[in-house]
Amino acid sequence: MSKNLSDIGEFGLIDRIHRLLEKEGLRAPGITLGIGDDAASFCPRAGHEILVTCDSMVEGRHYLPNHITPFDLGRRAMTLNISDIGAMGGQPLYALVSLGLKAETLMTDVEAMYRGFIAELNPFGASIIGGNVTKAEHAIFIDITLIGEAKPEKIVRRSTAKAGDIILITGYPGQSAAGLHLLLNAVDGEDLSDHPLVRAFNTPSHRAREGKAIAQSGYATAMIDTSDGFLGDLGHVCEESGVGATLNLDSIPISEELRKAAVKLGLDPYELVLKESDDYELIVTCSAGNVEGVRSAVSAVSDVPVTEVGRITDAADGIKLIFHDGTQRAITPAGWDHFSG
Amino acid sequence: MSKNLSDIGEFGLIDRIHRLLEKEGLRAPGITLGIGDDAASFCPRAGHEILVTCDSMVEGRHYLPNHITPFDLGRRAMTLNISDIGAMGGQPLYALVSLGLKAETLMTDVEAMYRGFIAELNPFGASIIGGNVTKAEHAIFIDITLIGEAKPEKIVRRSTAKAGDIILITGYPGQSAAGLHLLLNAVDGEDLSDHPLVRAFNTPSHRAREGKAIAQSGYATAMIDTSDGFLGDLGHVCEESGVGATLNLDSIPISEELRKAAVKLGLDPYELVLKESDDYELIVTCSAGNVEGVRSAVSAVSDVPVTEVGRITDAADGIKLIFHDGTQRAITPAGWDHFSG
Repeated sequence: MSKNLSDIGEFGLIDRIHRLLEKEGLRAPGITLGIGDDAASFCPRAGHEILVTCDSMVEGRHYLPNHITPFDLGRRAMTLNISDIGAMGGQPLYALVSLGLKAETLMTDVEAMYRGFIAELNPFGASIIGGNVTKAEHAIFIDITLIGEAKPEKIVRRSTAKAGDIILITGYPGQSAAGLHLLLNAVDGEDLSDHPLVRAFNTPSHRAREGKAIAQSGYATAMIDTSDGFLGDLGHVCEESGVGATLNLDSIPISEELRKAAVKLGLDPYELVLKESDDYELIVTCSAGNVEGVRSAVSAVSDVPVTEVGRITDAADGIKLIFHDGTQRAITPAGWDHFSG
Repeated sequence: MSKNLSDIGEFGLIDRIHRLLEKEGLRAPGITLGIGDDAASFCPRAGHEILVTCDSMVEGRHYLPNHITPFDLGRRAMTLNISDIGAMGGQPLYALVSLGLKAETLMTDVEAMYRGFIAELNPFGASIIGGNVTKAEHAIFIDITLIGEAKPEKIVRRSTAKAGDIILITGYPGQSAAGLHLLLNAVDGEDLSDHPLVRAFNTPSHRAREGKAIAQSGYATAMIDTSDGFLGDLGHVCEESGVGATLNLDSIPISEELRKAAVKLGLDPYELVLKESDDYELIVTCSAGNVEGVRSAVSAVSDVPVTEVGRITDAADGIKLIFHDGTQRAITPAGWDHFSG
């Protein structure tokens, strides 16, 4: 029978995790002290800045425990942090994983979660160098801090978009929201675990390779990941850059699966694409002359589509949607808001 | 009436926190990008390694919400991370704060918590550069990642103690455990908030200045903070260094308050001092000839006592307590274990 954390204890748990990481994880360059002391340490590379982000997931809030395996949960939690480093143009290097676990959590589930973390870190040669485990009575939480590096001149911010820039989006935003709606509306016994939209919800892809390639190209004026939803994050770009934006609804990429799911769910597909959805696509802005440059940078590392969806405008114009018939509507970015609504 | 987070929303909350930090926090050197993008960034100082640690607190588990103010809670959560950086000999610089908050949490309480974080960071010129807020249904959690720096040759590990070394302890371990017991055994209506032991539980002191001074002196062979209790962390030193230890019970510093509290509580004072207690004192090892050097390093920055309590021995000797009458007892380090017991 698989042991739970109450059987194995905190130090036993840390020891098991440590051994798993030694065996299955990689050792990122620069680490001078890994897990096992009061703090970890690393030697930063000359000529590079350090990037750092943290993001957390709470059981029942950000994932549905009955619909995701511990391995996929680990992948997803790490992906959203990798996405943040990638959206700056950085290279992920070192992760700290802080877990709130229940006494009845199975050791094998914790190990599967760590294998999920590693599955996302290993392709970057990145390592878990520290963390914390504590007991959470009611709901598991996973909080990850991810540290990366980038050359200062290659970091792309969200605050530097310019009026006149083209707005690009990678991939198909909204897939994750559609997957969540499918799960919430599933009939008893319906197994949706292999549905592509449910996969997009459970294990969304990051665009960190694409983000780094875009940053290296030097063509992007601003970049952000869509973790607060397409409109939510476009709103962040506009607010931080002091600009407005116009989106052409006709240009927004909608996958066939999402279109079908929207019909089945009785939802407007644009609601799924534009509003809160845990995708980790990139919104990129660049001058009109550099759109092909951004596309080439991405196609050199991946086959993810890059779609032109609108233009950055003056701040006074706000954010506008242009409909099929040419009519315009001013909108408020309605991103992901934990506490209200 | 004070607004709660459900009224103010996630983005409103982040905005309020951001403004509070701009106004009341300090800007640590090297920050190139603070709160407000996908990731924060900083430029590491040449010739320095980066230290990084994370630690979390969960409501009901690590603190009693009815017995601690939000300001003190913030102080305490930051203190335990500062302690980890200090126990390596490092200088705290940048913090990321990840919070799980309830919809009904008051905005004024969140602000008070941030003022607590800042109260601990400002003396080091350190800043909060990022973080995350999410909704937690049942219990608030606070997870902090703290980044610091140190010159490589001045970092003191826990894994480098040598047989024959003297074992030193700063301050009075066990104060926090005694404070917790007093709270748990308080009679209805008894206000213990100003009791020195309860203060030690709610807002323990870190020894980061002392730790840095000790590291700079070059006299310590190993150092660790007592966050897992005196014996728990002495056990870590022994395990990681491959050594044993002998403690003289008569030498262990016990404050008058703790002695009185033990009598009142009907507890053995040594149980309080040696076992799990959320103090953040330092265990330091050094050669016999360097004890005075360590003491001088500490007394140059603080009046915290440094007490000689035993000796590092060979691994084969295990960990032993020497009693008043000269008898010895082999013991197992019984540290703080979240999941078992």
